[in-house]
Amino acid sequence: MAPAQKTIFVAIIGLGGVGKSFLSQLQHLRTRLAQATTPIDLRLILARRSTKELFSEDFSHLDIPSLPSKLEGSSRPVLPWSETQDYLGTAPGRVVLVDNTSDAGLARSYPSVLRKGVSIVTPNKKGFSDGYDIWKDIFSAAANGSGPATGGYVFHESTVGAGLPVISTLKELIETGDEITKIEGVFSGTMSFLFNSFMPVGGGGGGFGGEVKKAKELGYTEPDPRDDLNGLDVARKLTILARIAGLQVQSPTSFSVQSLIPKELESCQSGDEFVQKLPDYDGQMEKLKDEAAKEGKVVRFVGSIDVGSKDVQVGLQKFDTSHPIAALKGSDNIINFYTKRYGANPLIIQGAGAGGDVTAMGVTGDLIKVIRLLQ
Amino acid sequence: MAPAQKTIFVAIIGLGGVGKSFLSQLQHLRTRLAQATTPIDLRLILARRSTKELFSEDFSHLDIPSLPSKLEGSSRPVLPWSETQDYLGTAPGRVVLVDNTSDAGLARSYPSVLRKGVSIVTPNKKGFSDGYDIWKDIFSAAANGSGPATGGYVFHESTVGAGLPVISTLKELIETGDEITKIEGVFSGTMSFLFNSFMPVGGGGGGFGGEVKKAKELGYTEPDPRDDLNGLDVARKLTILARIAGLQVQSPTSFSVQSLIPKELESCQSGDEFVQKLPDYDGQMEKLKDEAAKEGKVVRFVGSIDVGSKDVQVGLQKFDTSHPIAALKGSDNIINFYTKRYGANPLIIQGAGAGGDVTAMGVTGDLIKVIRLLQ
Repeated sequence: MAPAQKTIFVAIIGLGGVGKSFLSQLQHLRTRLAQATTPIDLRLILARRSTKELFSEDFSHLDIPSLPSKLEGSSRPVLPWSETQDYLGTAPGRVVLVDNTSDAGLARSYPSVLRKGVSIVTPNKKGFSDGYDIWKDIFSAAANGSGPATGGYVFHESTVGAGLPVISTLKELIETGDEITKIEGVFSGTMSFLFNSFMPVGGGGGGFGGEVKKAKELGYTEPDPRDDLNGLDVARKLTILARIAGLQVQSPTSFSVQSLIPKELESCQSGDEFVQKLPDYDGQMEKLKDEAAKEGKVVRFVGSIDVGSKDVQVGLQKFDTSHPIAALKGSDNIINFYTKRYGANPLIIQGAGAGGDVTAMGVTGDLIKVIRLLQ
Repeated sequence: MAPAQKTIFVAIIGLGGVGKSFLSQLQHLRTRLAQATTPIDLRLILARRSTKELFSEDFSHLDIPSLPSKLEGSSRPVLPWSETQDYLGTAPGRVVLVDNTSDAGLARSYPSVLRKGVSIVTPNKKGFSDGYDIWKDIFSAAANGSGPATGGYVFHESTVGAGLPVISTLKELIETGDEITKIEGVFSGTMSFLFNSFMPVGGGGGGFGGEVKKAKELGYTEPDPRDDLNGLDVARKLTILARIAGLQVQSPTSFSVQSLIPKELESCQSGDEFVQKLPDYDGQMEKLKDEAAKEGKVVRFVGSIDVGSKDVQVGLQKFDTSHPIAALKGSDNIINFYTKRYGANPLIIQGAGAGGDVTAMGVTGDLIKVIRLLQ
């Protein structure tokens, strides 16, 4: 069956929180594009989560609303990834792979996927924040990097600040000839929530260990909160932005990253044990809090990139209570771009930087960009 | 001479502050695209300002650095606009018209320009904020509206918030299926500067008339400050955003707009006379300032769109001193998008919303988008 010219094929890997939100946005987009003046047939041809998958051998569309239950009932073994790539490469038209996982192995295959002409949109930070070589390989294969026009496009807006227009804004500043001097902000919804609770402007807030426990109970942390408190998630986001700004950052562990995990608790057997013992180490954080309060400041966990001095840092800093970073609410992210053109006052992007719906929004937005480029 | 496939022709109308900044960004972009993996020849073929113009009859490139002086020395009469359109229509490849004027007549020709396959990028608010019919005509002719694929593309990021990613963000929220509930913000650099000086958080500030005089002297107002104080500039921006959000706003005077020009001064002969007499009417603004101070608030000139109730408003409002709108600095704009997906805390875009360089940045960013779509 030869599809009409305006057909674009979509394959999804990963159906967790972001994946489920994305599916619902995909259904909305599919309906909208089918009704457009120049209609586009957006066809879901493959969906995979951990050990189960569904794909259509004849490249017809897999019904989205019934997908989760069909996938649940499927006993089809998952094809090896190399065979799946071959399958996508034989689709009778352009294909977009939506990687909603955080799988480093999958990310390592992006260059070969792109070389097959398959585009990629993803919130998966691994490919863009692991070794610098992988980053180079990805963009030397992509049509919107230095790759051939026959290669796929790659977009990853949701790797920083979820659906907030962070990466697109940074790229536009650079492409239009501005000079980035500094990028500074709160890049983790978890860290934002923790410090806005631990030391709100105006005083108050509980002990640090107790706030971590509360955040975990409210679902604001990873299952093991050490995965947030080690600073690596923020370091990955900084790695991505620094590379876009032109710095050859080797890896997210190649610069100064402050971990909030007390040395003594690094060996805890479980996240639960860690959360239980953390309040015993409140003293040090309380001391920082008191110091900041005496200076009329608050403590926040931030990332910063000084482009001129190539200095990338992740850790605790004190801010005046009138600073936009201090005034942040809930689990919001804030990203300040200081540039030559914008002068003393930065260009600021602020809002929810975590959550299934807003992360999926960044992925869907990227999918729309790819569709426009493929038309 | 048949140009290579990867040639894109650019025509510029308007060489004031924004136009000059744009020219310098165009030169930067031209150099970058010529050196890209898949090179593009970005050719400037026409430049016009008020009564002078230069164009290349053989569609070869006009040297950018020497353009202003050559244009100054040119005695060539300006071609009628209809003939210029015909000229652009005969270019051997795709053309982008950059309208850096604020000319309503030129804006009325956008539909016919687009139908010729010529794309448009512009900071000119007129076409998008005058009568609703013109808005409809433009987007029914554009390839990225409901027009045919052979039509030109139209982008106008700089019509709201200069280079800040306001329009692109609003469109992406809508296209990915979010529901906009409310848009609120400070949309005028002049009004921002005036009120941040007149009533800074923490007290102080001079009389309103004096602050207007100071802002004019510093170049923060239009030559005649009444063009800022009548609220029409903000009303035009709100009209544009409301229409993108789906409201059929008829014109920028079809909703409530508060003018800060005292009735008695509407008949002043000149902007200078107006500025001289304005301090005589400080009493009313001082009263508002006192009222707000008693409530622990500040006064700001804002625009708001309540999408559900279709209510668009422009005028003075009081804000808690802890509100992001109160904390604005200098002549910064702030735009808050309240949506279903983002919940209680809005998605916020903030930064310089006026000035040649940042306005031109929005235009250049739009040009880059068009070039990608035309490749």
